[in-house]
Amino acid sequence: MRNMVDLNSDLGESFGSYKIGMDEEVLKYVSSANIGCGWHAGDPMVMEKTIDIGAKNGLGIGAHPGFPDLLGFGRRKMDITPEEGRNYVIYQLGALQAFARAKGIEVQHVKLHGAFYNMAAIDYKLSLEIAKGIYQVDKDIILLALAGSQMVKAGKEAGLKVAEEVFADRAYNSNGTLVSRKLPGSVIHDKDSAIERVKSMVKYGKVKAITGEEIDIKADSICVHGDNPEAVDFVKLIRERLEEDGIQIKPLKEIIK
Amino acid sequence: MRNMVDLNSDLGESFGSYKIGMDEEVLKYVSSANIGCGWHAGDPMVMEKTIDIGAKNGLGIGAHPGFPDLLGFGRRKMDITPEEGRNYVIYQLGALQAFARAKGIEVQHVKLHGAFYNMAAIDYKLSLEIAKGIYQVDKDIILLALAGSQMVKAGKEAGLKVAEEVFADRAYNSNGTLVSRKLPGSVIHDKDSAIERVKSMVKYGKVKAITGEEIDIKADSICVHGDNPEAVDFVKLIRERLEEDGIQIKPLKEIIK
Amino acid sequence: MRNMVDLNSDLGESFGSYKIGMDEEVLKYVSSANIGCGWHAGDPMVMEKTIDIGAKNGLGIGAHPGFPDLLGFGRRKMDITPEEGRNYVIYQLGALQAFARAKGIEVQHVKLHGAFYNMAAIDYKLSLEIAKGIYQVDKDIILLALAGSQMVKAGKEAGLKVAEEVFADRAYNSNGTLVSRKLPGSVIHDKDSAIERVKSMVKYGKVKAITGEEIDIKADSICVHGDNPEAVDFVKLIRERLEEDGIQIKPLKEIIK
Amino acid sequence: MRNMVDLNSDLGESFGSYKIGMDEEVLKYVSSANIGCGWHAGDPMVMEKTIDIGAKNGLGIGAHPGFPDLLGFGRRKMDITPEEGRNYVIYQLGALQAFARAKGIEVQHVKLHGAFYNMAAIDYKLSLEIAKGIYQVDKDIILLALAGSQMVKAGKEAGLKVAEEVFADRAYNSNGTLVSRKLPGSVIHDKDSAIERVKSMVKYGKVKAITGEEIDIKADSICVHGDNPEAVDFVKLIRERLEEDGIQIKPLKEIIK
Repeated sequence: MRNMVDLNSDLGESFGSYKIGMDEEVLKYVSSANIGCGWHAGDPMVMEKTIDIGAKNGLGIGAHPGFPDLLGFGRRKMDITPEEGRNYVIYQLGALQAFARAKGIEVQHVKLHGAFYNMAAIDYKLSLEIAKGIYQVDKDIILLALAGSQMVKAGKEAGLKVAEEVFADRAYNSNGTLVSRKLPGSVIHDKDSAIERVKSMVKYGKVKAITGEEIDIKADSICVHGDNPEAVDFVKLIRERLEEDGIQIKPLKEIIK
Repeated sequence: MRNMVDLNSDLGESFGSYKIGMDEEVLKYVSSANIGCGWHAGDPMVMEKTIDIGAKNGLGIGAHPGFPDLLGFGRRKMDITPEEGRNYVIYQLGALQAFARAKGIEVQHVKLHGAFYNMAAIDYKLSLEIAKGIYQVDKDIILLALAGSQMVKAGKEAGLKVAEEVFADRAYNSNGTLVSRKLPGSVIHDKDSAIERVKSMVKYGKVKAITGEEIDIKADSICVHGDNPEAVDFVKLIRERLEEDGIQIKPLKEIIK
Repeated sequence: MRNMVDLNSDLGESFGSYKIGMDEEVLKYVSSANIGCGWHAGDPMVMEKTIDIGAKNGLGIGAHPGFPDLLGFGRRKMDITPEEGRNYVIYQLGALQAFARAKGIEVQHVKLHGAFYNMAAIDYKLSLEIAKGIYQVDKDIILLALAGSQMVKAGKEAGLKVAEEVFADRAYNSNGTLVSRKLPGSVIHDKDSAIERVKSMVKYGKVKAITGEEIDIKADSICVHGDNPEAVDFVKLIRERLEEDGIQIKPLKEIIK
Repeated sequence: MRNMVDLNSDLGESFGSYKIGMDEEVLKYVSSANIGCGWHAGDPMVMEKTIDIGAKNGLGIGAHPGFPDLLGFGRRKMDITPEEGRNYVIYQLGALQAFARAKGIEVQHVKLHGAFYNMAAIDYKLSLEIAKGIYQVDKDIILLALAGSQMVKAGKEAGLKVAEEVFADRAYNSNGTLVSRKLPGSVIHDKDSAIERVKSMVKYGKVKAITGEEIDIKADSICVHGDNPEAVDFVKLIRERLEEDGIQIKPLKEIIK
């Protein structure tokens, strides 16, 4: 039985005069931050500030590279090559690392954003190029990837430490993939039920699939959101319930060693 | 008397399908490359390729950060704050460092581009913020700056190693600043005369100002261009003449220690 | 004595997933909308929606062209040429016109944004090129410009109809220019006093300068803001007070004929 | 038998300091120009200049809207909605129209660029939204579309005049679609053979498919390229041979009425 887990959330996705996300609120409850790197979101001023506030709150700092599509917030599939994918990640990771170093801290992890994440999760070749690129830049960085995905496989193949993340409010297929949002039952709306599922995933590595059977799943980190007050309340509740149950919330680097 | 100098040129300023510069030609003759970092020019694919080809040719690799103005190729003044200037440099420097590390090499220097360079050359406060930012990221990086400028002063104040660069084909005022391109006599068109001036600057740290008197100038590096065949021929000629005169062409890191 | 005036506000400055401005609230009280055209703010989806909602509420629709600087929200001076200025306005104006035509309406006016507005206000040559460009595109468009500025002069020279705008909460110098925000007394904080000044400007074309004397000023339109609840409340109050005083709020096209 | 056809080529795809395409050469031989609208390529200065030079050479002027992906030159599929597609076209078309109006001319046609073109060619829903948008902006604009594609069908449904274009150097499947570039035989390398095929398509509306049978095809326009000297020579040759055969080269508006 495992008694610790990471809570990760996207932070630093404001851009210039545009503010998005309740960063100051959600960072009280999470242990790792995925910080926008200026492509789908974020900018140099936001990156510097977010690393600063994140580090002061003890969070593990991660790069959150996205597609070059600010207009679409990185949520639209783009038909890039694996080599482009690798270099887009190296570029954004490096930019964030420089801000981290300027503050005397190290980047803990990389988590892809939006459509980039979704594409890599099912594309081994794309994931492998990206993972190799990250390894070449810094072999100690943790790749935070969808549990059971091609990215997990590719990250390990490339020699990276890999953390697997799960979703509190999403249903899983019997093969461990997420049930498409287009299908009924894909989202778990009941909070208590969602939290019980999280506990089971963290402690026993098990979750009940939408088809009814219990499947194996690795939950090194739980992906949570801070874009609205309700989401933040849910993060707070997850944290409280996990801690009540004896599960400690720790940054990825203390979980993946 | 000094018998070595660096020749630096901008490289890697292509973008996507757009090609600019005769990189393959000019890199045979220079010793340091200022590589576009994706803002005024360059992109992740170009950065990777340019670092690779530069390193294979023994060049010192430098970051060449510019304004967020691809449309204007970073040549238009933008009214940024010193803090923005610092973070724009950290971002672009970090991105280039990641590509360098992925190849197992280190970024040697930072040289600002275009209007960013011109603004910082005469703005101590802007230069100081930028220099402090570079120092925080990596204190061993050399700041390549206009000889005698505010950037030289600020770089030293921030604790950085500073290299001063001169121009073969530009006239100098008696106070060491460049004669404005808008004024007659600002550009030295005679190649022989330009090269003799370079030799004098390198060997004796002296150059004749437009007003006739001899002034002091520090020439750690000579700025050259590779945008057209004639420019490349001139670079080749400078190198040959300097070497004939016993002046060795070496990357900045062997000159500034 | 004049008994009508336009109230203009910036609208449609959201971008992709980023929301800015209380458009739905402020459009109840204003008569003309300056709509972001995708450079400093706004995007095609936002433009379409804002024209639609603006037209349904009877507002005059205006193009609000800005600098190619989304990161700086168009608020940073950029050193562009008059020809660039003209073409940047033509491009953005044309884009907005197409959305307007698709809805069966015409663009009423052009008002430059931010640093573009400020630069053109004091630069006759830049303003003249821009005004000529607008005239060539559509000679019936009204140029909405800072009262008494070079843009007013240039717009008339180019043959355009020109509307002059004033600010409720800003002090004026004795020569009719705005007192710099850096100086004490530049902003009128007392709402009653601000509204009395507006009434005087609209009805009698007079305002008391910061130096005490009464100066002439033309107030075809009042510039108001809708970025926060307090600003919207102030717009509502201005409208109410003006109407109580018998001053009608009308779109520019009914004021400038 | 038909004795006239349009030759269309992409023009105005330079951007800022970046030059691409041999516009001055190729415009001597073509009759219609597809002008980049600032998204995948082109900028306001380039647009103005290209319209000017195109009109002076008697070319029909067309908008060439692309994806918001300058880095990928609009050649990468992006997962946009039909509504986004429509508004992206309206925006870019409007921008070009404004430059055309400023010169006293009208935009003749719209031809999508790159991946946008390829996606719409096989997606009726996307094409229909785009075609409706164009119709709302200006019902007299000709939609230039891949012969036999969904875009042709959708353009007609929306009430637009539609011109169908063919490729001189590409093989066709028996159902009239292009043979994928990934397959052997997809590109016709022999120039004489390519030109004979073009003549047959223009005069008789027939071409031999890769499978051997003769199929129907409508050739209102032939797509040609001007990116390199060899391509320009081929355009010149096509024009000469067609004219020798009594086929006149005319802008689209004289062909589609």
